[in-house]
Amino acid sequence: MKAAIVTIGDELCSGSVQDTNGTFMASHLHTIGIEVAKVTTVGDNVAEIVDTLKSAQQKVRFVLVTGGLGPTVDDITTQAAAKALKRKLSLNKQALKDMEEQFKKLGRAMSSHNVKQAYVPGGATVIPNPIGTACGFSLAKANTLFFFLPGVPGEMKNMFVETVLPLIRKEQPETSIVRSHILKVFGKTESYCDQMLSDTIKKEKEITFAFLPHYPEILLKLTMRGQDRKHIEKKLKAVERTIKKILGDIIFGKDKETLEEVVGNLLRTRGSTLAVAESCTGGLIAHRLTNVPGSSDYLERALVVYSNKSKKELLKVSAAILNRSGAVSKETAERMAKEIKSSSKTTFGLAVTGIAGPTGGTTEKPVGTVFIALAHGRQVTTHRHSFYGDREQIKSMTSQHALDMLRKHLIEN
Amino acid sequence: MKAAIVTIGDELCSGSVQDTNGTFMASHLHTIGIEVAKVTTVGDNVAEIVDTLKSAQQKVRFVLVTGGLGPTVDDITTQAAAKALKRKLSLNKQALKDMEEQFKKLGRAMSSHNVKQAYVPGGATVIPNPIGTACGFSLAKANTLFFFLPGVPGEMKNMFVETVLPLIRKEQPETSIVRSHILKVFGKTESYCDQMLSDTIKKEKEITFAFLPHYPEILLKLTMRGQDRKHIEKKLKAVERTIKKILGDIIFGKDKETLEEVVGNLLRTRGSTLAVAESCTGGLIAHRLTNVPGSSDYLERALVVYSNKSKKELLKVSAAILNRSGAVSKETAERMAKEIKSSSKTTFGLAVTGIAGPTGGTTEKPVGTVFIALAHGRQVTTHRHSFYGDREQIKSMTSQHALDMLRKHLIEN
Repeated sequence: MKAAIVTIGDELCSGSVQDTNGTFMASHLHTIGIEVAKVTTVGDNVAEIVDTLKSAQQKVRFVLVTGGLGPTVDDITTQAAAKALKRKLSLNKQALKDMEEQFKKLGRAMSSHNVKQAYVPGGATVIPNPIGTACGFSLAKANTLFFFLPGVPGEMKNMFVETVLPLIRKEQPETSIVRSHILKVFGKTESYCDQMLSDTIKKEKEITFAFLPHYPEILLKLTMRGQDRKHIEKKLKAVERTIKKILGDIIFGKDKETLEEVVGNLLRTRGSTLAVAESCTGGLIAHRLTNVPGSSDYLERALVVYSNKSKKELLKVSAAILNRSGAVSKETAERMAKEIKSSSKTTFGLAVTGIAGPTGGTTEKPVGTVFIALAHGRQVTTHRHSFYGDREQIKSMTSQHALDMLRKHLIEN
Repeated sequence: MKAAIVTIGDELCSGSVQDTNGTFMASHLHTIGIEVAKVTTVGDNVAEIVDTLKSAQQKVRFVLVTGGLGPTVDDITTQAAAKALKRKLSLNKQALKDMEEQFKKLGRAMSSHNVKQAYVPGGATVIPNPIGTACGFSLAKANTLFFFLPGVPGEMKNMFVETVLPLIRKEQPETSIVRSHILKVFGKTESYCDQMLSDTIKKEKEITFAFLPHYPEILLKLTMRGQDRKHIEKKLKAVERTIKKILGDIIFGKDKETLEEVVGNLLRTRGSTLAVAESCTGGLIAHRLTNVPGSSDYLERALVVYSNKSKKELLKVSAAILNRSGAVSKETAERMAKEIKSSSKTTFGLAVTGIAGPTGGTTEKPVGTVFIALAHGRQVTTHRHSFYGDREQIKSMTSQHALDMLRKHLIEN
């Protein structure tokens, strides 16, 4: 069974906004064995939408449409759907009631413009939107099922996962199963992994291997199709074990796990605590760590010591060190890590200092020069790095290496 | 004159990789007044590609195709192009020579597989690839110009900007100009703005208005087409002034400007400095501020006081306050803002404390309850908010409101 995806919006066709809805839906459909034949993006143009919906209907079992369900005049997807599928628009009372309640919950006034959003084509079933005000709807035409969802990614994702995906699964025969596992790698190149795994890849013909760059990480995706769910899961797990033996600790996680989650779980399991001192990352390490629910269990504090004054006052980096070695130096990083650990009374102190650019580089210490220090027990370990890229990439790379340094220390000790 | 974009690759249709080539080309074409009618993504499937190319040819003047020009067996775009446009494949000597030189330059051995990449459809003109090995080609069929480029974003971008865009410009009459301005709005809904501006939108028929949600902001895009560049710019500026009068200070910036950039520029212009104390945002405010090059001019330090202990030790939030009002309270936020300001000796102290969830909420203070305090001079202003959404959304919304509170203070004083 095949699907087509249609994403709608002038902002997509003019390149103002990058569409991510298509990729999100495609990856979920792929996981349950539905092949996406085509993803089409069109503007807010009734004729183009009608044309695209009609041509999709002739070819696929499922058509997933996002965008153009809002309250403004340029939102014309519902109207185009009615025209393409030859239905009349009518007010759906449940949709109107849901929307009124949603506005109440959000503490916002509902304007007369919004009522338009409760009109759906005849015969459509409303898809509730628990986090926004625009409902979606589904509609069958001949042998094709159409799903219309709003374009706001957060709302679309919620509605797709909660309502649409279960409906598609129901239509699917039990005989075609696809399972994918993702191993997350950091610290080596794609070519390195490819070479190390070449024998395994050649041998395991039932499994498709794909390397997906996901800066600064690499995702290794294993996919297997078949009829027997148990056999597939067993086989995938066995191959995963083989890969882990070959690649070792550069594999840091699986599927949706983030590096900050992995580090957090390691800290929690060991009853360890952490304090962070950031210069060039400017808060990014703490931001990543605190994206994980429950991170207050192990993250005690973080200091963004952006000025030399704050490095002196908060972390006792002496004027002598700053004059002798500079704010971007092994000595400063070590002092920062030791002091943040001892003043916070945590198990670990993690510190970074570097030059994120675009200015501030010298011949000796060009933009991208970063020192990362980890204080543990009475010791401190420091690594010097030379990163390439723009300011955001250098911040990202530094935070990734800092978290990974802590992860490796935790699994080795 | 219209264009269609076709991006090709199984990895795109399976959702493994997010296509960014389409958006890149669309935004460039938009700037020179070419409307993109449709962006289609298909897998490495000859029949689908042929079908898509044929249907595009009937409708548009330019067809831009990326992907599937590599050396492996699943790269079948050239073959599909030959079939769709009824040409035979033949070895292009210039392409072969270029490729041989490119391999030499990269210090890599050219395999026999690569020779395939020098075969192009009869009548095609080769598009050189200065940074990779796969050449591209262009081809005219009836009244349509086709351009085929590799899918690797770095290579595609180079070839598109250096060769394709100048060729398209040549075909374009000098009379068609498109200009877009984006006004960035925060603090009100799309419906609110739509209602407030309805008279202007009705009156200004030369201009297209579009609201683009860009959580947590709204982008209002004004687009105007015409013959006279000066008239367009003048008209757009006049309408912008009208809109600014109507919407007031909820418009915080223009085009690519970020809120943190706007706040940073205001601080710099006034010679003011800032220190931040973050609890629930966990470093996100500092991370955003330090994404702006030169932010060390005004950001002195930031403290992520995640534990009660760190609130006490670093910001003198007393046990009495914590017992009486709690860590998430007006009193705590005020104390944090005052103390970070006075201890850092900055012009402003900005502090946030709240419950980002998913746990930790109570009936009185549910998840999403946030206090934001701004210390300025001898005063401190505090706002209580109730945000809705998941942990990342609450962090994002809090950082946005905190930065916006500072922005409003700076422009009002």
